[in-house]
Order: sequence, then structure tokens, then C-alpha cells
Amino acid sequence: MKDIDWQHIDRLAKQWVKEAGGILKESLYRKIKVESKSNQDDLVTEMDRRVEQYFIMKIKETFPEHLFLGEEGIMGEEISSESGTIWIIDPIDGTTNFVHQQYNFAISVAVYHDGIGMIGIIYDVMSDELFHAIRGNGAFLNDQSLDKLQSVPVEKAILGLNAGWIVDNEINEKNMFVPLVRSVRATRSYGSAAIEIAFVSAGRLDGYISLGLSPWDFAAGLVILHEVGGIASTIDGNPLQLLEKNTLFVGKPGFHEEVISKYIKRG
Amino acid sequence: MKDIDWQHIDRLAKQWVKEAGGILKESLYRKIKVESKSNQDDLVTEMDRRVEQYFIMKIKETFPEHLFLGEEGIMGEEISSESGTIWIIDPIDGTTNFVHQQYNFAISVAVYHDGIGMIGIIYDVMSDELFHAIRGNGAFLNDQSLDKLQSVPVEKAILGLNAGWIVDNEINEKNMFVPLVRSVRATRSYGSAAIEIAFVSAGRLDGYISLGLSPWDFAAGLVILHEVGGIASTIDGNPLQLLEKNTLFVGKPGFHEEVISKYIKRG
Repeated sequence: MKDIDWQHIDRLAKQWVKEAGGILKESLYRKIKVESKSNQDDLVTEMDRRVEQYFIMKIKETFPEHLFLGEEGIMGEEISSESGTIWIIDPIDGTTNFVHQQYNFAISVAVYHDGIGMIGIIYDVMSDELFHAIRGNGAFLNDQSLDKLQSVPVEKAILGLNAGWIVDNEINEKNMFVPLVRSVRATRSYGSAAIEIAFVSAGRLDGYISLGLSPWDFAAGLVILHEVGGIASTIDGNPLQLLEKNTLFVGKPGFHEEVISKYIKRG
Repeated sequence: MKDIDWQHIDRLAKQWVKEAGGILKESLYRKIKVESKSNQDDLVTEMDRRVEQYFIMKIKETFPEHLFLGEEGIMGEEISSESGTIWIIDPIDGTTNFVHQQYNFAISVAVYHDGIGMIGIIYDVMSDELFHAIRGNGAFLNDQSLDKLQSVPVEKAILGLNAGWIVDNEINEKNMFVPLVRSVRATRSYGSAAIEIAFVSAGRLDGYISLGLSPWDFAAGLVILHEVGGIASTIDGNPLQLLEKNTLFVGKPGFHEEVISKYIKRG
């Protein structure tokens, strides 16, 4: 691992992400101009694939020995091991926002090596905010270094939690989320897991909960979060599995433990 | 009313809003630099007052016959009538965001004349997005004209609704919000009523619900929304009272009616 130049990979990855952001932005302007908004669901499918293909092409060309994990699988094959250098990419995280809002969507790019997150990049395209980290080198929002996260008590916390998880989750409703939502200072929901994990990393949220995420939704976020001392687990407090669908709870240290012990495991 | 130069008032109001935005932005940079984050609740109180005083000074100086409505009352007096020209201002809408996120807060400025909204300005300070409208002249996001809102069916809608309203609102929970949240495509929550009404006006949300708002939270938003054909009412579908605390439901035409008839009034 020591002989891999992560700074070099990071520089290229950031450059590709910015270029891909330009492709997405341009597609929205073009679409809005020339077509009705009725078939924007086709647009997201088309652009998702196009940006994924763009990254696959760049990676194959530059790092032929690296692997790629995305919604379409790993270069077409099933991924079964975390060995080697794996790019985990979500070309458009927050597809509903992309289609409906032309706003609040992100490109999420992570590079993992033998199961360890080395590079994480989340690019909020429309607000031009690039959250990024190389393992061991701190985390950044554009050129600004992000502070280490400090603990916050539950009653002062802002929690990223979508209203949908409360009503769609009958079993948990009475046991978990209702008391938690009542206890925190406020809840927010932006509709992109990548952006919400980035917001936790930047201190804009104190925690974020989602009950159904794929690896490409959180892989980059975890690398960034790790650099500022944030904690990540499943909603039950168990370790995340990189290659599986997961529930996710990320948060500030202290806050994460308090929520798990007082609200999740209290029954 | 015809002899009032609304364009002139609008130009000045926008200039003042931008200047006030600069004051808020500067206060955050200064605060973050020189002090710990523990006393940021004091900061919001201080800046709320300072920006309100700034507007009162400017208005008194330029339009001595105009009235002012804000959290501190109307120039210190109780307001009891909608007659005359009234500025309705929220110096910081989204104070929790201002304190915790340094992000997603807005200055909201409305000018009403004999109860009719003539000018609405919502300035999202950190993203530098200025939503504005003069009655009868269309609505704008920065220099871009906003489209008239088109109807959307409930199952395709993105609704601005905070998780807190579901858990804090036991009576309504089973009757209203749970089936509604289950029916819509997605929910979002940004923590600033002014920004959320601006987002409905700009088509980023299809509707927005809040159960406890003051006039200065929505006065500017309603002027902007009106220009793009959006519908505003209390959550029961009744007309809003400008001088009282209200529930609020704003939305696209068609969507607003469908929600009121199928989800709110169905019992």
C-alpha cells in the first residue's frame, strides 16, 4: 500500500469529478432549454450511465489494474472480495433531486484499498462544493480544512432524518424515531445520502440516519467522516459491510454513542 | 397605490438586503475566527436585532410614512390594521441553521400595501440566491425569470415537511400526515420557511407545510409565490391572516387542491 501514490490518484479523481460535474450541469441546461420536463426520468438514467461510463473509461485507461464498483456491478462482474484497489462510484447521488430540483445532487467517488477507504470525494455540483479527503491527511471543503468534530448532547443536535423513515417504519416508529425526533433540537432532510454525510463531516448536521443505502451511497462519505473523527455504523451500532446494502447512522462522537445507547438499544 | 414607485422601493430593498447579507456573513466569519462556538445563541440574538435595526433605520430615513412589522412589533407598537405601507421583515429566517450550520438561512423582506403584497425578497445569504418579485411583474431567482408552476400529481410530488410535525402532532398523525408522506414521491426539510416557500416558487419543491409560522416567516414568500401561480392557505385550506400566527400550506396549483381534498379534509 505504501508504494501507491494516493496524492496522484486523488488529483486525477478530483479532476474527473469536476469534469463529470460539468457534463451533468450542461445536461440540465440543455434539457431545460429544448425539452419538456415530462421525460426527465429518462434523463437521469441516461446521465447516470454516461457519467459512470466516463469514470470507467478514465480508470481503465489510467489504472488498468484497479476495479470499479457501481450500480451496474464491478466491471460487469459480481464483486465478492474487498482486496485490491476498488473505485466505488455513484455518478448521481440524489437522483430525485437531480430530476425535480436540478439542485442538491452529488457525484460520490471513493477509492478503497484492501477494504480501507483511502480517498473520498463528494461533489455537490450545483453549489460547487467539493468535500474531499485522503486517509490520514484531513478533510476539506473546497480548499478549507474541516475541523475535528466535537461531541454535542442530543437536545442540541440537528439530525438528518427523512419523514419517510418515520411513517414507513411502523415497527421502529414507537420504539425509536419518535422519541429521538422529539429529543433533538431539529431534523433536516436534503435527499442525498452523500451530501448528508458530507454535511455531518462539515458540522452542518450532527448526525444522519438512513435505513436503506448501497455502498456507493456512503463509501466516499465514510472516508471524509473518518478524517474529522465522526463515527459510522449501522442503525444498530454494528460495523458497516462495504459490499452490502446497509442501514446507516453517522454522527459526531458522543452524540452517536448517546443515540445508540438511549434510543436504539433502550428496549 | 398607483402613484407609489414600487420599482424604486424594490431597488432600494434589494440593495439593503444584500448589505444586510454582508453583515451576517461577516459576523459568522468573525465569530468563527475569534470565539468558541458555545455562545452562538447570543450571536443570533445580537445579529437578529442588529439587522432589524439596520432595516428600521433605512426605512425611517427613506420612507418615514412607512410602517414596520417584525418580531419586536411594529415600530414598538401593536399592529392592528393592514392599512398603509408595511414592511414585514425577518432579519434571519432559519436561526437554528444560522447558529449550527452557518448555512441555509435567509433574510426575508416584504412590502405590503393595504394588505396586498407588493414586493417580496428572500435572500439565501450563503448560497447568494436572491428570490424576488414585484406584484404583477413576475418572479425571479437572481436575474433568471421563474416559470409559472404546473400541476403535479401527489405521487410525483416532493413535499417540504419536517419530521418534527409528524411526531409532535399526535392528533393529525394518523389522519393526515402519515398517508400523505406515504403517497408523495419524497419529502425534504431545510429548516427555513422563507427558503422553502422560495423553493416552491422556483419549482424545487412541489409543496411545503408548516404548522406554526409568524407573518414575517411567509410574507415575502407569498408575494413571490403569487407571481408564479402558486397557492397558499392554512393547512385546512382557509385564507391566511397576515397579522397572526398561522399554519401554512403552499403548493403548486392542482397539487394544493388534491392534498387539501384527499388528505386534509377526508375525515
